[in-house]
Amino acid sequence: MAEDAMRKNERRIDLPRAADAHLRFIGQIRTPWTDRSQCPRQGALDGPECRLVLDPIWEPALAGLEAYARIEVLYWLDRSRRDLLTQSPKSDGATTGTFSLRSPVRPNPIGTSLVRLERIEGCDVVVRGLDCLDRTPLLDIKPDRCAYTPQVPPKA
Amino acid sequence: MAEDAMRKNERRIDLPRAADAHLRFIGQIRTPWTDRSQCPRQGALDGPECRLVLDPIWEPALAGLEAYARIEVLYWLDRSRRDLLTQSPKSDGATTGTFSLRSPVRPNPIGTSLVRLERIEGCDVVVRGLDCLDRTPLLDIKPDRCAYTPQVPPKA
Repeated sequence: MAEDAMRKNERRIDLPRAADAHLRFIGQIRTPWTDRSQCPRQGALDGPECRLVLDPIWEPALAGLEAYARIEVLYWLDRSRRDLLTQSPKSDGATTGTFSLRSPVRPNPIGTSLVRLERIEGCDVVVRGLDCLDRTPLLDIKPDRCAYTPQVPPKA
Repeated sequence: MAEDAMRKNERRIDLPRAADAHLRFIGQIRTPWTDRSQCPRQGALDGPECRLVLDPIWEPALAGLEAYARIEVLYWLDRSRRDLLTQSPKSDGATTGTFSLRSPVRPNPIGTSLVRLERIEGCDVVVRGLDCLDRTPLLDIKPDRCAYTPQVPPKA
């Protein structure tokens, strides 16, 4: 795939199959972007609505989330290669280390975003501020650590 | 294990083995806390130094990280159960949904912290602001998304 092509001066590493721990996808994220070239570089809190579609078994785990204006979303960047040590973001041959970039290409391609919670509809959590591809697997939802700003007083 | 005991009114769910995606630990985190009861509830940026000890193969991936004052650290909370839908943080029978808590107990127990970068020593990244147990497996390091504040101008 062209998306996986290496750029000038990038370094990769041979790795055994990843097997230290296992993830369970808890749903998927619906966004307007179906191709990587369409994705914004960074999500904007006034960007389009996106939808975290949870598997129905997890609905009880949403209780209380409506109290928060900002939430953190974790997701699995399932189309990203995982073996680059250095990357050339501008394709100009100048490279920097994978851990000094927020590129989706990394040994464990987990995306984290702070987003604005718009509303909860059953198992769907509607937010603004994401930048990932449509149908990205969802890993976790947490209240924002910094803000921790209830929209309304949290229920006892 | 007592740490895994359920509290009054908490709900759990039967789940098949997690196998949707696989993680690779890239090192481990050394902190002063060897027991969960010692861990601070939330890391403080003026807290004790902690050390992200990367496997040496990843050292080239740190290039450029020294430019950032704040970095995001992802880690695997390997002692946490993963099957609770609702939890009772105060053990008083009042429960709230797992996704409205930052508890380590969650379907994918990935911790995320924003920390202060103190210095890099070879494969070791020294930071302040963590709250996890000693020897927690390390998953990822990224520059802080919000701040994105270079300590010095990033190298070209």
